Amino acid sequence: MSVPLKIAIAGLGTVGGGVIKALSSRKKALEAQAGRGLEVVAVSARDPRKKRDFEVQGLLTDPLALAKSDADVVVELIGGEEGVARQLVEASLENGKHVVTANKALLAKHGKRLAELAEKNNLQLKFEAAVAGGIPIVTTLREALIAHGVDAVKGILNGTCNYILTEMEVTGRGFAEVLKDAQRLGYAEADPALDIGGGDTAHKLALLSALAFGTAPDLANMKVEGIEHITADDIGFASEFGFRIKLLGVARQTAQGIDQRVHPAMVRARTPLANVDGAANGVMVDAGEAGSFFFSGRGAGEAPTASAVVADIVEIARGSFGPVFGRPAASLRPLVPADSGASQSAYYMRFEVLDVPGVLAEIAGHLSKANVSIESMIQRGRAPGEPVAIVMITHESPQHAVENALKAIAASDKVRARPCMIPMEAA
Amino acid sequence: MSVPLKIAIAGLGTVGGGVIKALSSRKKALEAQAGRGLEVVAVSARDPRKKRDFEVQGLLTDPLALAKSDADVVVELIGGEEGVARQLVEASLENGKHVVTANKALLAKHGKRLAELAEKNNLQLKFEAAVAGGIPIVTTLREALIAHGVDAVKGILNGTCNYILTEMEVTGRGFAEVLKDAQRLGYAEADPALDIGGGDTAHKLALLSALAFGTAPDLANMKVEGIEHITADDIGFASEFGFRIKLLGVARQTAQGIDQRVHPAMVRARTPLANVDGAANGVMVDAGEAGSFFFSGRGAGEAPTASAVVADIVEIARGSFGPVFGRPAASLRPLVPADSGASQSAYYMRFEVLDVPGVLAEIAGHLSKANVSIESMIQRGRAPGEPVAIVMITHESPQHAVENALKAIAASDKVRARPCMIPMEAA
Repeated sequence: MSVPLKIAIAGLGTVGGGVIKALSSRKKALEAQAGRGLEVVAVSARDPRKKRDFEVQGLLTDPLALAKSDADVVVELIGGEEGVARQLVEASLENGKHVVTANKALLAKHGKRLAELAEKNNLQLKFEAAVAGGIPIVTTLREALIAHGVDAVKGILNGTCNYILTEMEVTGRGFAEVLKDAQRLGYAEADPALDIGGGDTAHKLALLSALAFGTAPDLANMKVEGIEHITADDIGFASEFGFRIKLLGVARQTAQGIDQRVHPAMVRARTPLANVDGAANGVMVDAGEAGSFFFSGRGAGEAPTASAVVADIVEIARGSFGPVFGRPAASLRPLVPADSGASQSAYYMRFEVLDVPGVLAEIAGHLSKANVSIESMIQRGRAPGEPVAIVMITHESPQHAVENALKAIAASDKVRARPCMIPMEAA
Repeated sequence: MSVPLKIAIAGLGTVGGGVIKALSSRKKALEAQAGRGLEVVAVSARDPRKKRDFEVQGLLTDPLALAKSDADVVVELIGGEEGVARQLVEASLENGKHVVTANKALLAKHGKRLAELAEKNNLQLKFEAAVAGGIPIVTTLREALIAHGVDAVKGILNGTCNYILTEMEVTGRGFAEVLKDAQRLGYAEADPALDIGGGDTAHKLALLSALAFGTAPDLANMKVEGIEHITADDIGFASEFGFRIKLLGVARQTAQGIDQRVHPAMVRARTPLANVDGAANGVMVDAGEAGSFFFSGRGAGEAPTASAVVADIVEIARGSFGPVFGRPAASLRPLVPADSGASQSAYYMRFEVLDVPGVLAEIAGHLSKANVSIESMIQRGRAPGEPVAIVMITHESPQHAVENALKAIAASDKVRARPCMIPMEAA
């Protein structure tokens, strides 16, 4: 066996702890896989005196010191797109150290530049843990599904949102109530904005899109919508139509360019993505002639995320080669965005209207003027003079046509609240 | 860019053609991924004059000549556990050439020895295409889900069987009739024995088991049962109970050893494996604390299998390292088999009996004597003196107890045909 790989770990939260535990409890098996020793030589933590359920030596408080340590690889588990995390990754690569990170925000923003830095110095920058936890979707897109290109990748990439939507469906309760419960149970952060607003999914999608299409990660050209406005009614209606509502990240190659978007979608019940329940993640890859492939499992938490980090460490120990995003970083093209408004889809629409004569005629008139035709409609509950819900499913229509119609409808004095529109995801 | 990788391809059937087409139509993208040129320098085919829908130069008739060519990597797509395929792989590894193969039979039988030969000569022997076609399950088990070990791997690994079972369910037709159709449509071979008898699944499971548990591939310690005896009735009853019948390969680490088996199983409807339809494949991996991961997609055919072969070629072009089965081949342990008779499961049982008084009492008596208790029963159709079906679901019972009871029941003169028993697969 050759010399051991020296590992430094920055950040001793859930994932950091999980990595240390796995490297210690499965030391022999992992070293056999790596073909060499795996030694944790330095660890940094914000609070080194915190009680932990595992042993750790040489605890530092300054993560940046790790970039100057004698480690071969620095594992960055601090998080955040700027600040210490970015400084540490840059300094480590500049000082000849490989980097393993779970930091989607950092790579979504600075991925191309950091990959160039790594490749210039013949170093690895690996990030399997940044997307979908234990599911090896980064490796799969980078190395496995490459022979026929990728037409589209769609995923449930945020366990918090999927947990909330699943709970809303199971219990019939509203968004705010379920979110509060999720926070109490540790499924949602105290500040849940990045999760429920779709930002976390956007970071992950930017990385999948780069791997799939050979473009630089691009957050700017991405429409992002969260799940805050989804009501228990929407979920109930979806179920009546044979669908489930999921927060999807979708990146698709079109003739005009790449369409990247994060939004709640109606997914047909019993399809693989619809069956991803609770805090799980799932990703569908349309790999050209090779067909569609589906991957699911736990996308967050101590062991699944540590699993991805450890796999990256072992790859580096083995002497893995290969560019960070599958192609040389310098060759990653700028993303040419598709006109997402032109994309065709059927839509679910919900209007809260006053139950007065003529309201349906008015809505139908606006839709007709925008050339949006209706496939089915439900108007439930009759409460003269009170708001009721009208729900419609459109035929395939261009997104901007539906948006225009909704804008006109929202302006009506018979319509309460913002109309809700959710695309129906084919397959 | 460094020197191009020289590729020789043995076997120009569906997969060989697919590899050549992908390497040519996506040449630029694949070379960018490989970081060097990818050149097919020699190809062998049984019938070099056959008309093909792609161009190929330098066609040889003797595959063994490829082992002496100037290729860096030989792609073996001939098949078969002995004969030319084995000679070619051995000669190629002895002559300093990497090998990529889709040959599960060869590796299930000679995997450890061939891996030792490859590793001794610092060569790669890659076989992603041997299991589940385009699904990167070999790489995933070898490199991704390693941090917490694997407790079990279960898969639908044979598209022919899954197609037949799905068709039987959809159409209500019998096994023989659907098989004939499948042969006409090209979903089943003229000689379907290896597929429908479970042998092909066994080859693939032996490889997954080796990757998951660090043991030498072992076909001897595996119980293998095919789908020939499954009737339309069984599928109908399964559906009534909320299950679907699937041919599964299951390898599980138990306290006593590794339990490897291939058999039809009752899989609960709406679970991921139950939803694998038609000719698709699906694999579930229980990765210890990291949880369960599921992978599905097309497991056979030109493009999916070529996708796996091309990914292996590109890995070799990049200079991928690492032992064939994840650990040094010399360290692969002999498999210690679990006593599969002791394994606990609930069972579905179907008896064809004469509808005469006392038959149910006799069956119940034998089950009771073997300590097998019944959870539910269906006796359908009444035709005095004629055979009718009795179907039972047992509570969790040791396999050998159920087998003993069935042996006694089969000996009764009131029972027609061999009783059928199918384990209920939990999740």
